Amino acid sequence: MSLHSDSIVIDGLNISKFDRPVFEDMKKGGVTAANCTVSVWENFPATIENIAEMKRKIRANSDLLSLVRTTDDILAAKRDGKTGIILGFQNAHAIEDNLSYIETFAELGVRVIQLCYNTQNLIGTGCYERDGGLSDFGREVIAEMNRVGIMVDLSHVGGNTSTEAIEASSKPVCYSHCLPSGLKAHPRNKSDEQLKFIADRGGFIGVTMFPPFLKRGIEATVEDYVEAIGYIINLVGDDCVGIGTDFTQGFGKEFFQWLTHDKGRYRRLTDFGTIKNPEGIQTIGEMPNLTAAMERAGWSATRIEKVLGQNWLRVFKQVWGA
Amino acid sequence: MSLHSDSIVIDGLNISKFDRPVFEDMKKGGVTAANCTVSVWENFPATIENIAEMKRKIRANSDLLSLVRTTDDILAAKRDGKTGIILGFQNAHAIEDNLSYIETFAELGVRVIQLCYNTQNLIGTGCYERDGGLSDFGREVIAEMNRVGIMVDLSHVGGNTSTEAIEASSKPVCYSHCLPSGLKAHPRNKSDEQLKFIADRGGFIGVTMFPPFLKRGIEATVEDYVEAIGYIINLVGDDCVGIGTDFTQGFGKEFFQWLTHDKGRYRRLTDFGTIKNPEGIQTIGEMPNLTAAMERAGWSATRIEKVLGQNWLRVFKQVWGA
Repeated sequence: MSLHSDSIVIDGLNISKFDRPVFEDMKKGGVTAANCTVSVWENFPATIENIAEMKRKIRANSDLLSLVRTTDDILAAKRDGKTGIILGFQNAHAIEDNLSYIETFAELGVRVIQLCYNTQNLIGTGCYERDGGLSDFGREVIAEMNRVGIMVDLSHVGGNTSTEAIEASSKPVCYSHCLPSGLKAHPRNKSDEQLKFIADRGGFIGVTMFPPFLKRGIEATVEDYVEAIGYIINLVGDDCVGIGTDFTQGFGKEFFQWLTHDKGRYRRLTDFGTIKNPEGIQTIGEMPNLTAAMERAGWSATRIEKVLGQNWLRVFKQVWGA
Repeated sequence: MSLHSDSIVIDGLNISKFDRPVFEDMKKGGVTAANCTVSVWENFPATIENIAEMKRKIRANSDLLSLVRTTDDILAAKRDGKTGIILGFQNAHAIEDNLSYIETFAELGVRVIQLCYNTQNLIGTGCYERDGGLSDFGREVIAEMNRVGIMVDLSHVGGNTSTEAIEASSKPVCYSHCLPSGLKAHPRNKSDEQLKFIADRGGFIGVTMFPPFLKRGIEATVEDYVEAIGYIINLVGDDCVGIGTDFTQGFGKEFFQWLTHDKGRYRRLTDFGTIKNPEGIQTIGEMPNLTAAMERAGWSATRIEKVLGQNWLRVFKQVWGA
């Protein structure tokens, strides 16, 4: 057995085209569990439908998948050789104006909700427009997410809203998938100060490899990904850092058009250009190469296990309560 | 005939319990047309239902009422001795995340939409919480409202969002119902600078008499209402000022509980205390006393006619296009 195949591997953010080819690649990649996006621009009823559809897929592919409601479910997935699907949102838009929907989603199995996606909503503002900070309704949303055990994600949230959300939350919050602006300046990347701020308050940082935010862009390799993870570990230590790949496997141009326009259809917010994941980790199935690159970088087995999954496992348990 | 009964009388904001007793009182009060609120906290489907219900009431009370789609409809209401119902929203929440709904509402007859009601929405922020200004989606909303001829109302909108909305709109915008903070400091009242700012840019000011915002509160009389209108005329002249009573006739405590809690049901935003309209104009039927009080104040018939309705009529035609 290798270090990779022995480890709990948790991907803090995956927004792939969730069908059998992706699920098979998750098994090949040794992914124990992944935070799989089931809502971005969708409203409440459309998100309910997305959740039901994901559950149908889990049933139809039950040789490969299981639904994660607790961290014990992640351990069971590892034991059974399956990939645990964690239901997550990249936008709280689906909550609409109704705090009751938060518990509803929790009961349906949703475990991570990003407060804003790129632009303003009832809660705060995303990272692609001027950000006036957390709204008072947003404070009520966070309190309810804390109560029902849904993790607050701030990856695509604006700086002011993020700072205030970190301070408002009584449980750890995360950037599930981000990169340091110390390596590349970009509205989606986080400054050293922001990374230290969340870590100092018990929060968590999942590191992405999405090429537009990487220093070398589409020229990057898996070594660049490890460099970015290492940069953040140097800032905040290796106990609150994990993986959040942001794989978009199986999707084409139309999907990125939807993501990068406000509400999926209005003004363009950003242009990613060509999307090509780093050499060595272009597909989910190549995840073992990430572990190999960490080993080449001289990281200890303990550090690698933490970053691959043990850290996510601990913080999820803190937030979910089980 | 008196000056009042000869005049076009337009109430820029009425949020009464719209049933036959109120409609009869509108006739008694000589109200030619009123901007009647059909949406505050309601979402798109609930607002569609409210609009349909108001149209059923107009049909059921067609001896007293007509629907206003153009300023000619206001003139026809005057000629026919009816009250014209202008459909208006006090919140753009009903637009949800869909710009297409704006033209939908315009086709259904909606002619005035307030951008925010007291708190943050997708467009901007209301006057009862910190205000980060107009969102980029809000700019798209205003452009579409300009295109389809729906007037932008800013009465309950925060200061920063209001300033930016006034600058963003290519057509006149209004505070349909406000009072000057020069007479009483209150989050809902507008400073001299704000009143001049909107007037200097072709905008409009409807003056309310809602007691919590009046200098003398529930001790006020119709003379205090005239004083407040006069205060604003002294600042900006008498061509861009009108009436916006904010009558809440027929409603009780439960209704104010709904209005003063975010989304109609969450945290309390303000407490109005006892609601008692100024002596002399406690009911819509007493509107002629307002004209009498203006005459006692020595205002010219020309000024009184402008304030009672001619000014609203002109600015509505500019915005609606007919």
